[in-house]
Amino acid sequence: MTDTLTGLAGASEEQVRRDDRAHVFHSWSAQGLIDPLPIASAEGSYFTDYNGNRYLDFSSQLVNVNIGYQHPKLVAAIQEQAARLTTVSPAFANDARSEAARLIAEIAPGDLNMVFFTNGGAEANENALRMARLHTGRHKVLAAYRSYHGATAGAIALTGDPRRWPSEPGMPGVVRYWGPYPYRSAFHATSEAEESERALQHLRDVIMVEGPQTVAAVILETVVGTNGILVPPPGYLQGVREICDEFGIVMIADEVMAGFGRCGEWFAVDHWGVTPDLITFAKGVNSGYVPLGGVVISDRIAATFSERPYPGGLTYSGHPLACASAVASIEIFREEGIVEHARALGEEVIGPELRALAERHPSVGDVRGLGVFWALELVRDRDTREPLVPFNAAGADAAPMNEFAAACKQRGLWPFTHFNRTHVVPPCTTTADEVREGIAILDEALAVADRHTTAG
Amino acid sequence: MTDTLTGLAGASEEQVRRDDRAHVFHSWSAQGLIDPLPIASAEGSYFTDYNGNRYLDFSSQLVNVNIGYQHPKLVAAIQEQAARLTTVSPAFANDARSEAARLIAEIAPGDLNMVFFTNGGAEANENALRMARLHTGRHKVLAAYRSYHGATAGAIALTGDPRRWPSEPGMPGVVRYWGPYPYRSAFHATSEAEESERALQHLRDVIMVEGPQTVAAVILETVVGTNGILVPPPGYLQGVREICDEFGIVMIADEVMAGFGRCGEWFAVDHWGVTPDLITFAKGVNSGYVPLGGVVISDRIAATFSERPYPGGLTYSGHPLACASAVASIEIFREEGIVEHARALGEEVIGPELRALAERHPSVGDVRGLGVFWALELVRDRDTREPLVPFNAAGADAAPMNEFAAACKQRGLWPFTHFNRTHVVPPCTTTADEVREGIAILDEALAVADRHTTAG
Repeated sequence: MTDTLTGLAGASEEQVRRDDRAHVFHSWSAQGLIDPLPIASAEGSYFTDYNGNRYLDFSSQLVNVNIGYQHPKLVAAIQEQAARLTTVSPAFANDARSEAARLIAEIAPGDLNMVFFTNGGAEANENALRMARLHTGRHKVLAAYRSYHGATAGAIALTGDPRRWPSEPGMPGVVRYWGPYPYRSAFHATSEAEESERALQHLRDVIMVEGPQTVAAVILETVVGTNGILVPPPGYLQGVREICDEFGIVMIADEVMAGFGRCGEWFAVDHWGVTPDLITFAKGVNSGYVPLGGVVISDRIAATFSERPYPGGLTYSGHPLACASAVASIEIFREEGIVEHARALGEEVIGPELRALAERHPSVGDVRGLGVFWALELVRDRDTREPLVPFNAAGADAAPMNEFAAACKQRGLWPFTHFNRTHVVPPCTTTADEVREGIAILDEALAVADRHTTAG
Repeated sequence: MTDTLTGLAGASEEQVRRDDRAHVFHSWSAQGLIDPLPIASAEGSYFTDYNGNRYLDFSSQLVNVNIGYQHPKLVAAIQEQAARLTTVSPAFANDARSEAARLIAEIAPGDLNMVFFTNGGAEANENALRMARLHTGRHKVLAAYRSYHGATAGAIALTGDPRRWPSEPGMPGVVRYWGPYPYRSAFHATSEAEESERALQHLRDVIMVEGPQTVAAVILETVVGTNGILVPPPGYLQGVREICDEFGIVMIADEVMAGFGRCGEWFAVDHWGVTPDLITFAKGVNSGYVPLGGVVISDRIAATFSERPYPGGLTYSGHPLACASAVASIEIFREEGIVEHARALGEEVIGPELRALAERHPSVGDVRGLGVFWALELVRDRDTREPLVPFNAAGADAAPMNEFAAACKQRGLWPFTHFNRTHVVPPCTTTADEVREGIAILDEALAVADRHTTAG
């Protein structure tokens, strides 16, 4: 007996858990070693399990719930579009698709006026690379170490983190470079200005020795996400833009995680006033309420495919239900000033509060970020900067971080941890008080990390 | 002034068209040479443009609207889940995800008990290949000419049609083979039995010369879709299963188009009683009302990733809104007997009616299919079997097919044409009368094709 059409709302925690373990194959997991927590409901900045435990979400799920959970207007817009028209193939025109593309072009910088819609970020990066290769007639692409671009064959080949390793050998033509990371400089820089200058010199050198006429694209996360919230130092993105212009190379900004308010701007590149040739997006465009991603395309690259067919596509490109949710989300962001709120949260609350935490905790080696996109990098020793756990740690090696995460969860905070870092990436709609509530829990949980330091 | 939240329903055709041309970058198209028809609404087996022209859909959009347009119970289930919980990351358990996986495992053959959810078919094939490679520790994959597996870097490398060409060189390790196609046999066979036997010998020979111990997987569309509705002759799929078993090769059945009722079975393999190691799906699982795809996984392959992490994933794997729509769709299929209806339509209406058409039209060279998955192959000459238009024809070369398609559309039928074929792929819920209405239009439009034959 249930009161719903599908009977889903009648399921017990036990049933959800049993069917999950029997039938759901989970991403990035050893299926026999996991026990995924069943989530019963969610609202605003919180989600709740079947035992009534409520978690303040400092992860925004996978850094996608920018608008918060179950925003009533966004839910209503999805319901309305479901009643109107759910699906139309990419060969037709459709009002939701047209309006979503128009709005995204409106908020995108410069001449980025066309939108190719996908289902998510991996497909967006795959298609951006295809466009760049065909536009330039060149094959190589420069992709950064410490990056994540998705898990399809092209996107994982671009990825500069250990998630790529099991999928090698993969798509040919990827050349790796190092991006700026002032706290652990690959260039022995001692200031942000030096880091920017040397990272640009390195990029230019790699292009030189690879042959600029063979390089189709440079791809980068505007602000590196999962691999550390690496905010580019002043001048770096402008410098990449100049290098790309000099050699006729397409600049692809992956803003799957950094876009749509996450960095306190519509697009993270706006923070530096840089216009890439292609921007890829997903996640924040509609907070993942319906799967959606895409590529925003400059006029020059779109023109390449004006008379010549673009050889790529997917059944759900420009999906009406997904596009309608993007339209509503952008309208809600405007009405509620969510981008401005995210910027202010970062400048006035998250940044200052995290810096204050760092003063109290020897395990905090570095604090960095902007908007609602922050990282605390945890170390064993502030002087040597030895990470609290080794690169790509698993099992016992990862114990200090696992203990820290468990301490957060016990106190009602769901953290986003990766390697030796905890990221502070709540919904863009989180209130200042909620942020302070979460940071107070981080304050307690960091005591666990402190015990693993040389000072502890 | 509009009566809706987003104002979408208030848009005029002119506005939809203008914003589409200014901002929407379309799949597989020369952007400057297209004029996509704006669709205003859809219901059951029909969709309608802004001028009130109503089209009987013999394409099911991109062969995905298996349940028909805007099924009220499926729409209601989406609205209900939208109000409950739209999005939860793959790291958690969720009732909609658990139940969708349980139901899919229940209808899948043999020991295919686990489901890895993706956003669509390309990602499903990408992940199936990754699973096969890691399960076997081998790298090569055998993929058929005349196949389509998607447009991400791995899926397009697997694809055996011209859509792959602009994306080469691509992912390494793909070896091409020829599948059965009795009407244009690669093996000079003169009967279905001979075609099956020789195609299997060919597959075995390719494996021999490639080295069986280097081959991770054989991937095939159970019934080849866009490349011709190529129904495997009796014994072929059983033979592929035996060859895979003999050499420890993973058999991947791509049922993105053929599954979920399209062939008059839940999965097309059921027609031949064959259990692959992996089945990939999308489209018909929820008729594309929300983007969803996935891989159904055998116990043996799932066990490989029991203690060892599976190195793949995506933000929207097991998306609650998408999964809830799959749950509702499977329940509706059962309640309304949609699989059985599709089977009967093929056996009692579509097959007989198309064969009767062939008698009247010299342009029809071959009729083949099952369920609601049929092709008419059009030729200039029935004796030589010269195609009505050349392989991969474009521009003036494709004119006879374009004229045929235009004749259908003028009469209110939206056809699915590809190369020298028109496919008859209406929703599985189409009534016998609607099918007859559409075939009567094909009858008229084929007069156009007849004029291009040697008899015309």
